[in-house]
Amino acid sequence: MAQVTMELIQELREKTGVGMMDCKKALIESDGNLEKAIEILRKKGASVAAKRAGNDAKNGLIHAYIHPGAKVGVLVEIACETDFAANTDSMRDFAKDICMQIAAANPICINQEELDKTLIEKELEIIKEQLKKTGKPENLISKIAENKLEKFYETSCLMNQKFIKNDKIAIKDLLNDLVAKIGEKIKIKRFSRFQIG
Amino acid sequence: MAQVTMELIQELREKTGVGMMDCKKALIESDGNLEKAIEILRKKGASVAAKRAGNDAKNGLIHAYIHPGAKVGVLVEIACETDFAANTDSMRDFAKDICMQIAAANPICINQEELDKTLIEKELEIIKEQLKKTGKPENLISKIAENKLEKFYETSCLMNQKFIKNDKIAIKDLLNDLVAKIGEKIKIKRFSRFQIG
Repeated sequence: MAQVTMELIQELREKTGVGMMDCKKALIESDGNLEKAIEILRKKGASVAAKRAGNDAKNGLIHAYIHPGAKVGVLVEIACETDFAANTDSMRDFAKDICMQIAAANPICINQEELDKTLIEKELEIIKEQLKKTGKPENLISKIAENKLEKFYETSCLMNQKFIKNDKIAIKDLLNDLVAKIGEKIKIKRFSRFQIG
Repeated sequence: MAQVTMELIQELREKTGVGMMDCKKALIESDGNLEKAIEILRKKGASVAAKRAGNDAKNGLIHAYIHPGAKVGVLVEIACETDFAANTDSMRDFAKDICMQIAAANPICINQEELDKTLIEKELEIIKEQLKKTGKPENLISKIAENKLEKFYETSCLMNQKFIKNDKIAIKDLLNDLVAKIGEKIKIKRFSRFQIG
């Protein structure tokens, strides 16, 4: 078993903002692997969110971003459970990042579940029809079509988008990291994005 | 005929931001009365807007306001014809005022024409029914009901609301003043107002 040093725990803590004990546990579980430990904490964030699904996220904060030139602007509501959490720097930084993300990457919705299902099925049909014409085998076509749909989600849905400041993670990972850190249910509740012309 | 002094023209110019010659004309027309001259310029603003109705307001600016505490936020799009106008201080100040207005006075729409007509007619019916019970004469009832409806518009529609910084004018007056000053078609195109809880 790899040694979980104080330095390693400190490093994980600095990277994630999660408490000392949770960092230690994650590092023991990951056998001292820092990247795996981050992954474990992220999953923990997701499970915190699931456990707290019944809790109301009645609190939160509103944040805005106007891109230089004033031709693009974004307003966002981030919901959480307590006013205490809403007033933390972590929440404010997250809200700032989400505003910048929306301004730059122009999503059409927050979660892919919001997209019209019949529209998606039709889209999938069209992709498959086009692929059939290439003469590729049936099982391959399904796989390629699914990949194309994933790409579509990645472009259109905020939660599926790659984070503009770090394309190794998606926005849902950024959110789960924050949930692991804050320990509350947190939701990107709604956004508006205005653009001139 | 009252004398239209340079001082008077200067005062009107400072109050409205409208050009020297237009201020002089308005003061001659109002016989040196400053308040009447402002009214004349405002009407001119409305007529400029009407004349330019065919022109596209494709340009503009986006502005945001987050109320201290970050529980209320507003995003607004002000449209105008040219990028030059969009970059003036007058437009920016107007956008700021409109954001503050929406944050404070919480309108449900921009123009009263956006409100559902059948809903308004039903509302008017209910008001009249209630008034009939008071035993007031029919002609008085109609008049009181219309007044109540006006009050409803004044609460609900941004353009009809009294300006929070000067309750002597409505937002439509503030807009017409700006149109008279800028000489372009200007529109409050859309807004979003988010509030926590």
